[in-house]
Amino acid sequence: MTYKELVENINKKQSFLCVGLDSDIEKIPNHLKKLEDPVFEFNKQIIDSTAKYTVAYKPNLAFYESTGISGLISLDKTVKYIKENYPDIFIIADAKRGDIGNTSKMYAKAFFQNQNFDSVTVAPYMGEDSVSPFLTYENKWVILLALTSNEGAFDFQFIEDKESKRLFEHVLTKSTKWGTKENMMYVVGATKAEMLSDIRKIIPEHFLLVPGIGAQGGSLEEVAKYGMNKNCGLLVNSSRGIIFADNTENFAKIAGKKAKELQEQMQKLMFNHMK
Amino acid sequence: MTYKELVENINKKQSFLCVGLDSDIEKIPNHLKKLEDPVFEFNKQIIDSTAKYTVAYKPNLAFYESTGISGLISLDKTVKYIKENYPDIFIIADAKRGDIGNTSKMYAKAFFQNQNFDSVTVAPYMGEDSVSPFLTYENKWVILLALTSNEGAFDFQFIEDKESKRLFEHVLTKSTKWGTKENMMYVVGATKAEMLSDIRKIIPEHFLLVPGIGAQGGSLEEVAKYGMNKNCGLLVNSSRGIIFADNTENFAKIAGKKAKELQEQMQKLMFNHMK
Repeated sequence: MTYKELVENINKKQSFLCVGLDSDIEKIPNHLKKLEDPVFEFNKQIIDSTAKYTVAYKPNLAFYESTGISGLISLDKTVKYIKENYPDIFIIADAKRGDIGNTSKMYAKAFFQNQNFDSVTVAPYMGEDSVSPFLTYENKWVILLALTSNEGAFDFQFIEDKESKRLFEHVLTKSTKWGTKENMMYVVGATKAEMLSDIRKIIPEHFLLVPGIGAQGGSLEEVAKYGMNKNCGLLVNSSRGIIFADNTENFAKIAGKKAKELQEQMQKLMFNHMK
Repeated sequence: MTYKELVENINKKQSFLCVGLDSDIEKIPNHLKKLEDPVFEFNKQIIDSTAKYTVAYKPNLAFYESTGISGLISLDKTVKYIKENYPDIFIIADAKRGDIGNTSKMYAKAFFQNQNFDSVTVAPYMGEDSVSPFLTYENKWVILLALTSNEGAFDFQFIEDKESKRLFEHVLTKSTKWGTKENMMYVVGATKAEMLSDIRKIIPEHFLLVPGIGAQGGSLEEVAKYGMNKNCGLLVNSSRGIIFADNTENFAKIAGKKAKELQEQMQKLMFNHMK
């Protein structure tokens, strides 16, 4: 997907919502568990009821890998289902990969050639040659970890060099030379929304993927206030708050309702802050 | 596997060799490609001819994920084959994972419960809660990236704070509080062997997993000279230099020969440097 297509879709849907498909088999409604592929059936219903309000889906690979081969089959089916039925929706492999060049090339093949994801999240610790193989695919994206939403973010990401430049700022400044705003985004946690002004000084134009609203406690309003740019420039993720809002036979309907509520908040925030 | 068992096996075999099973389907001998599961057949023959000289195997997940479900079936079969036939050999999932706690827990389940690996490589960028879920499994290990073997290591790992402490040193000092030498190792690239003395000052007792000899240019002698401790404390990995040393019908025999050569060098180095 191109930058232009993504921006158009955000404007059309008046939404910058990404739904996280962290489809833990232990948390999905019981009535699905007797089906042949409960996780795919869960995803399919969630997708059908949220797609109208959503510009991106983000399956987290860990939840699929945790059940072995069957989980990976559910994932493959999910990606195909989205591509076939909602081709305008951006799909993120939340995989946090990154290895030496020779190896990252194989991961890129896995996510972009075999599985047709639009993007993959990548960890920056190993530097340029661990990231660049993902950038050789046309209209595919790297979403690089900058400032994550978890408590452990404080362990290393805020380490300051002699000029008081923090590690996550090094990641931003250096990595912007590896790609462009048309093939790179950054993960910035909503739990650190107050940092978004500093981040926007370094990368005014790039898209940010923002996890951490809802269960992790981040505020959507603050994210929009400090992080939005003239093309929106945000994908805000909600996982548990939407997909596990209900675990009865009504789960998909309730998920749709939760997604709609977020879309309506987002529409207002776009009206107020896109400039 | 326990620390004690690993050390005993190193002493018994007089080897600290780890064979990297980066079994790229495009590089395996042609005569195997007509079989039902060429990658597993390749691994099986490599394992049978190198196990005598080897204390660890390290499949790199990227090479298996790059061919989708079939690759993951080959990987499952490989891990089972090693566990059944060579139960004293330590198996590393070279996966470079790491995510928020809730998610790392799922990765730990994937590698330790479903797949029976002994250890998994983890990237440190997201801090403690991304690592600690892997440390809750008895006799399973985290192998944390500290100083990697690639060129990109210079992008962030050497950033110095105000007291000239480098990022990889922060990773070492901080993470030693998360686990012990009995459930944590560190990745230190052989291409940066001169750094091993500094690293040993911080972690004198932990095992180090050392990639980068052979194709990437690191020296085994320097690694032993600067990195070995009284329990050896090293697992040195060779991938391409062993598994792709030959691509005729003799590939496994040649791989065994290459592994034996390394084991013999290692035996001498253990005699000279274990103290």
